[in-house]
Amino acid sequence: MSQIDKHTSRMRRSTAADEIKKLILTRNLKPGDLLPTEPELCETLDVSRSSVREAIRTLATLDIVDVRHGHGTYVGAMSLDPMVEALVFRGVLSPEGSLAALREVVDVRLALDLAMADVIVNGALEADSTELAALVDEMIDKASRGEGFLEADRAFHTKLFAVTGNRLAVQLVGAFWDIHTAVIPQLGIAMPADIRHTAEAHGDMLAAALRGDVEGYRKAVVEHYRPLQKSISAATA
Amino acid sequence: MSQIDKHTSRMRRSTAADEIKKLILTRNLKPGDLLPTEPELCETLDVSRSSVREAIRTLATLDIVDVRHGHGTYVGAMSLDPMVEALVFRGVLSPEGSLAALREVVDVRLALDLAMADVIVNGALEADSTELAALVDEMIDKASRGEGFLEADRAFHTKLFAVTGNRLAVQLVGAFWDIHTAVIPQLGIAMPADIRHTAEAHGDMLAAALRGDVEGYRKAVVEHYRPLQKSISAATA
Repeated sequence: MSQIDKHTSRMRRSTAADEIKKLILTRNLKPGDLLPTEPELCETLDVSRSSVREAIRTLATLDIVDVRHGHGTYVGAMSLDPMVEALVFRGVLSPEGSLAALREVVDVRLALDLAMADVIVNGALEADSTELAALVDEMIDKASRGEGFLEADRAFHTKLFAVTGNRLAVQLVGAFWDIHTAVIPQLGIAMPADIRHTAEAHGDMLAAALRGDVEGYRKAVVEHYRPLQKSISAATA
Repeated sequence: MSQIDKHTSRMRRSTAADEIKKLILTRNLKPGDLLPTEPELCETLDVSRSSVREAIRTLATLDIVDVRHGHGTYVGAMSLDPMVEALVFRGVLSPEGSLAALREVVDVRLALDLAMADVIVNGALEADSTELAALVDEMIDKASRGEGFLEADRAFHTKLFAVTGNRLAVQLVGAFWDIHTAVIPQLGIAMPADIRHTAEAHGDMLAAALRGDVEGYRKAVVEHYRPLQKSISAATA
């Protein structure tokens, strides 16, 4: 059975979820807009209360709707969170161990970073560079005190990818980042001894991007992943 | 709220789902293995029947478990199907229209294809090349009769990526392919007039990979997306 068939058959099974999706479309609702109440949905869609509830739960799991208890149900952000949850768990469960799954995530991140280098280096980076520079300073500062800098790291990469104007690429980078952050502590990998090296490589990426140096940017990207790759290899051995 | 916080808070809300995930881990169950029955889960996890049911539904939506009616509940494939469903819907809902979302998918696919070129061209492609060559023939044959070749196209790309040994990359390519196949008919984009060109470009990709020509491979990849990009641009205009 192909992915499409599977996809279609799951859709067929949950007709109430389909109907709610149709209602979102026909009423032209956008992420953050309030959905009709449960009783209203039952009446409009002519389905039982329990079907509506089940459908809402399914759509909430997929981040297509967002249930805010005591407030109502809203159109969701349709993020890649569901993918992150499944992939984090698959990583832990992987027969080759979580390290193999983590290495795959790092390889795909690296591939995307290298492939988007042109667009990022030649994009309108100037506008955002103050914020990016502040994030680099924060990372170097924390690294020099031996502290981690996960939030700043994530913010740096998603902001950098925002330059591409490709929302899917931005979400993917965020999602992969989340996966590897979630998996790392479970694996007991020590913070790379050379987190300062990683922090500074972010600065090299930014500097190369600002001077329009695609090759320099690519080199800094590769350099930036080296400590992480080293610690994965060390943990595998 | 960061992705991780959101992720964690959703996890906290659904403790029964968490408990089932823990049970899968501690019993060392793998995709395709049978889970305990609902009553057994209630007893083992000390939670109500309705909590177990809700948790199973959530995990099924995420493809972490697979409910086969009349057979039982199994550990799921943990595919990227949930992501496909959310992204297809987001594509349709996108304020800039589905075409913008489709263009993003094509750009990310192109980025991944180019980034993985080295590994694919220098990988052990010879072993699989008969099957790949047969898929190219099938595509050219169908194209020359004016027929579509979606299944062969998808099979070609996922088989090619299998060479990288990166399961995440293979799943992503499959998922993106599904998204764009699902979105295209909704958008009413005509099959590219030059589907034969696309079909033949697959052959050029394979030939370049077999002769170890990374640059030739990259050129064929770019060429292969051109008709699709042209028809997206035409539909946008």
